[in-house]
Amino acid sequence: MPKLPEILEVRQLSSRGMFRFEEFDLRFSNGVERTYQRIAPGARKAVMAVPVNERDEVLLIREYCGGVHEYLLTLPKGAVEPGEDPRDGMNRELKEEIGFGARHIEPLRDFTLAPGHMGFEITAMLATDLYPEALEGDEPEPLEVVRWPLAKLPELFELPDLSEARVIAALVLARQVLNNRTSG
Amino acid sequence: MPKLPEILEVRQLSSRGMFRFEEFDLRFSNGVERTYQRIAPGARKAVMAVPVNERDEVLLIREYCGGVHEYLLTLPKGAVEPGEDPRDGMNRELKEEIGFGARHIEPLRDFTLAPGHMGFEITAMLATDLYPEALEGDEPEPLEVVRWPLAKLPELFELPDLSEARVIAALVLARQVLNNRTSG
Repeated sequence: MPKLPEILEVRQLSSRGMFRFEEFDLRFSNGVERTYQRIAPGARKAVMAVPVNERDEVLLIREYCGGVHEYLLTLPKGAVEPGEDPRDGMNRELKEEIGFGARHIEPLRDFTLAPGHMGFEITAMLATDLYPEALEGDEPEPLEVVRWPLAKLPELFELPDLSEARVIAALVLARQVLNNRTSG
Repeated sequence: MPKLPEILEVRQLSSRGMFRFEEFDLRFSNGVERTYQRIAPGARKAVMAVPVNERDEVLLIREYCGGVHEYLLTLPKGAVEPGEDPRDGMNRELKEEIGFGARHIEPLRDFTLAPGHMGFEITAMLATDLYPEALEGDEPEPLEVVRWPLAKLPELFELPDLSEARVIAALVLARQVLNNRTSG
């Protein structure tokens, strides 16, 4: 693995709501110096779940996404509260967004999104052994829940409103884990 | 598909380098009003390629990612210049980052990254029929090129430095297209 560049100086630029900007000067191991900008990671840990029911269907949600001003098919996600266990936070979000809790929640992977310019990461989890339990969330409107067979992911990936790369990646890793379990 | 919320007002908050912030007031179809913030899309189209050689290996790069201050395994990507055809821009980036051009480049999918809060999208493309040709890029140091068999994606996805969700998603869609071609 290459030697990380040396951070010569970090300047906090500004903060806007959940977004915090930094500029930093780097010296690469070959001596080249560069100035980078980034959006620093958020203060709260982000989590996202692939909830799978006993019929091997994934429970997706259709949600308004303000960044692109569209309704997209996505997965339940949210931010862990200070002091909250990430799996408990994930289970809370599941109850708020799809009306189910999960008796079994296991981390799949920490994803980066646009790591060249943003520090954001999100932990993808697999949620199984679901049970009905709804909690009131802070959503502006009820979310539509869409069930889709895990065996038909290629067809799902062709839907125009399934555009979120981290959703595709999480579904693929969840299927990989579940297939290994079945065959192992 | 639900009716999109009505945008009541948009306020430009600030710009920092490539980042432009907006705040906007929405009225959902059920009458609920909310204020959202987002990072608006960049001015230039972003592109990313899955370059596959004649041995069915994908050519990855190991690159310093300032957002997370780590070296990650990723795919060649960049921004299309004003007036440039996206495929030509992609081919230029391939020559700069891996030292190969591609005679065949086809779009796979437009990905969103964190569509709840960010307008960024990136077009993933499949690049095949490669030929050696290097262009000088603006990278601060030469990029290491890592070849990996497309048949072994599950093992690749277990590497800790292959954390970028859009890279995993693009690789899966590229394999899907190539498999359909072989079997079709």
